[in-house]
Amino acid sequence: MPDYYFDDLKPGFRIETEPMPVTEEEIIAFARQWDPQAFHLDAEAAKKGPYGGLIASGWQTVLIMFRRFLDLGLIRESSMGSPGVDELRWYRPVRPGDTLRMVAEVIESRPSRSKPDRGIIRMRQSAVNQDGEEVASMIGMLLLRRRPD
Amino acid sequence: MPDYYFDDLKPGFRIETEPMPVTEEEIIAFARQWDPQAFHLDAEAAKKGPYGGLIASGWQTVLIMFRRFLDLGLIRESSMGSPGVDELRWYRPVRPGDTLRMVAEVIESRPSRSKPDRGIIRMRQSAVNQDGEEVASMIGMLLLRRRPD
Repeated sequence: MPDYYFDDLKPGFRIETEPMPVTEEEIIAFARQWDPQAFHLDAEAAKKGPYGGLIASGWQTVLIMFRRFLDLGLIRESSMGSPGVDELRWYRPVRPGDTLRMVAEVIESRPSRSKPDRGIIRMRQSAVNQDGEEVASMIGMLLLRRRPD
Repeated sequence: MPDYYFDDLKPGFRIETEPMPVTEEEIIAFARQWDPQAFHLDAEAAKKGPYGGLIASGWQTVLIMFRRFLDLGLIRESSMGSPGVDELRWYRPVRPGDTLRMVAEVIESRPSRSKPDRGIIRMRQSAVNQDGEEVASMIGMLLLRRRPD
């Protein structure tokens, strides 16, 4: 992939990744570290819980979306971090063995008013499972360098 | 801590945790796994980056806030997961050795219209550093069981 700068990521730009599975081991390892609730942590206890079985922490789904976008390598040169995320939503459980693909679409872009070397884009990211169902989405802001002259 | 249910977490309920440090090792380990950008990953390369040194991934700050709230043990019995988060904001960098405390305040609460055994609260969580500066905040929704009769 070539380097993408603020100027290259206009509204309508869309990209997606290949589906990849989420394993029970990954779900439990993440839960131990960051979200130790029974329905993320313990397959047996989770059967009696609100989801009838083990499900991934929503934060894990968020990080999978985020990491898969980063791994495309588009913004390796241009990324300057992020001021935040809006409308993060978890629609459906992610269960062991589900495969997720990440879909990203730029929905807004504006140059910085105070700093001419950068701009902010708003990008909607979603995670879609093997049945084509959206399981989570978020609208993230990315602070990006402008393309060098 | 006793168990808290939907009915116990009314608007105005506020709780905070003791400050705890974030180490360089933790910052780099997290970045390797989820956010491998140079300014989160490599102290030397980060000196020439947009923050003039290594900073924690914003997602790590989010997970620290989230986990510290969970660890209070309030919602161990009542938590049924979350439909999402609004207005996640990263205001300031978190650098190695910074200490963060988590502050949580319930800002809204409404019983479920369709399911009488549960309700949703909106809780603002923030992370505050050793200088009293808010470094990040988010408004999370929590789906909670109602207190059993």
